[in-house]
Amino acid sequence: MIALDAHGADRGPATVAEGARLAGVPVTLFGPAAELGAADGLVQVEDCPLAIGAEEEPARAVRANPDASIARAAAAVAAGRAGALVSAGPTGAALAASVVHLKRLRGVHRPAIAVLLPVPGSPTLLLDAGASTEVRPEHLVQFAYLGAAFMEAVHAIERPRVGLLSVGEEPAKGTPDVVAAHERLAAGPLDFRGNVEGGDLTAGSCDVVVTDGFTGNVALKTMEGTVRTVVGAIGDAVRSSPVSSLGGLLIRGRVGALRSELDPNSVGGAILLGLRHVVVIAHGSSTADGVAQAVRVAGRAVDERVVDRTRAALAAGDALRSAPAGSVSEQP
Amino acid sequence: MIALDAHGADRGPATVAEGARLAGVPVTLFGPAAELGAADGLVQVEDCPLAIGAEEEPARAVRANPDASIARAAAAVAAGRAGALVSAGPTGAALAASVVHLKRLRGVHRPAIAVLLPVPGSPTLLLDAGASTEVRPEHLVQFAYLGAAFMEAVHAIERPRVGLLSVGEEPAKGTPDVVAAHERLAAGPLDFRGNVEGGDLTAGSCDVVVTDGFTGNVALKTMEGTVRTVVGAIGDAVRSSPVSSLGGLLIRGRVGALRSELDPNSVGGAILLGLRHVVVIAHGSSTADGVAQAVRVAGRAVDERVVDRTRAALAAGDALRSAPAGSVSEQP
Repeated sequence: MIALDAHGADRGPATVAEGARLAGVPVTLFGPAAELGAADGLVQVEDCPLAIGAEEEPARAVRANPDASIARAAAAVAAGRAGALVSAGPTGAALAASVVHLKRLRGVHRPAIAVLLPVPGSPTLLLDAGASTEVRPEHLVQFAYLGAAFMEAVHAIERPRVGLLSVGEEPAKGTPDVVAAHERLAAGPLDFRGNVEGGDLTAGSCDVVVTDGFTGNVALKTMEGTVRTVVGAIGDAVRSSPVSSLGGLLIRGRVGALRSELDPNSVGGAILLGLRHVVVIAHGSSTADGVAQAVRVAGRAVDERVVDRTRAALAAGDALRSAPAGSVSEQP
Repeated sequence: MIALDAHGADRGPATVAEGARLAGVPVTLFGPAAELGAADGLVQVEDCPLAIGAEEEPARAVRANPDASIARAAAAVAAGRAGALVSAGPTGAALAASVVHLKRLRGVHRPAIAVLLPVPGSPTLLLDAGASTEVRPEHLVQFAYLGAAFMEAVHAIERPRVGLLSVGEEPAKGTPDVVAAHERLAAGPLDFRGNVEGGDLTAGSCDVVVTDGFTGNVALKTMEGTVRTVVGAIGDAVRSSPVSSLGGLLIRGRVGALRSELDPNSVGGAILLGLRHVVVIAHGSSTADGVAQAVRVAGRAVDERVVDRTRAALAAGDALRSAPAGSVSEQP
């Protein structure tokens, strides 16, 4: 069962409900029942008229409004009534509801926002894309295990290639924290490819690229902005002469399709890793198909036991925060 | 007089010498005299057969080889025989020679590598692009003054708009260091536009964007990689059908030109700011025209007294390291 917040999406609750019905997996919708249609074999509805607005400070709003749809959906996951949370509303609210209602995976320092970059032929998972702007080496090491376990379980990539984002390939390049993380990752069981640079994010040379949330957010938004600028400039250049205008008309469909393929916002949004349940945040402008895709990703994460596998991978890499699994010294 | 290292460029010393002659300003070439042609009214030659290879550790190689062309060119600037240093060789060697031979501007914490991003219609100066991977708030504040003074003097932009790279527009977004730098910049005399995000780097909304050398390097290389990937993917998409192939043939020239326009490597490389002399590092693959352009930028920086103006701007913003200019407590 996937808990799906029907509020907050640009196209409205009815589109989210349509996406739930397309997904083909059991879903409970949390939103305005009047707009969500009738329950059926796979889709249930819990009436939650209250939404958290995009302009509210998310953490405060989530705590102040336990009846808001995103809070109730997250609480349903926390209570075990659903296996994962999906939202197409504001990222801040989904993140806040997850942090408030869903516990961290035991031994994990911090959750991370992971984004699948749309590299043609070889999608690359970038994390952290903005949950933690300051991290220590042990956080970067954990992000590597979180990302690798996700790509292995949900995208069926055997032994994902993991890179550490830095300013040069040599192990000594980067901040002291990055250098320390490099050392620990190189000694661990992951298929660690060492430091990678900004240019590698779109080169398809790694399946997972790990960085702090400040750098990851800047890199992600730089990619998005560059795609916009390049595609826009090609359009301008093409329109500037009759011959190339004709050429432009002939390729217009292809370039338009490519633009959305290369837009990181179009691949189903972000995944929150490191909690006891998977959270998928679909892009706010998602169509019904986009919502269905996000629900399927969440469903696959549950079926493939991403959380258990993540914990096992962290334990195998000796990357858990305190005592290993089964120790009596750590509280659940 | 500009000191120009003729070694290290991909196209060889003769191309660098050709660039020197095209520049139209007085230049002293440091390199293999036999390949550089005769001295003339504007161009002098100092024979320096020794080059520092791209594979050597730059700082060590510069110290161990005071007769290498880049070291002698930098020393000529330090001795006052030339006003600025230009190189089309490896960035590392030029940076190392500058740090070893050229002093920091009094009151400046650290030099920064500035790169002019090729935003169509509104070039944006990004700094630091990799000189210092870890910075404190006062370094970020100084970078803002260094960049603004350069854009004002060399690119004739009155009151450059300055942005601080972060993960959200609100002043409280980012690391504690970024938040502290924001506060100081907002209180100073620059035209400070507040925090900007990765997507703003290519949007033309600022003339100067300030960040630490780790984030700046990642953002710059992410831009370069994304341009390569998008232009490559458009080529693939266009070739995939006869109709769009024809369209592709008609626009090929435009897209090729645009690709080099949008390649940050093509705008004449990097500028080292914060020293007592300006250093321009042309891209290694520069043509003679590219070298000439880099020499002209350096010449304009000298003519427009970038260094004096930078110092005055730092003093006006109360951003110098210790006592203000003229104090007896600081050693020159």
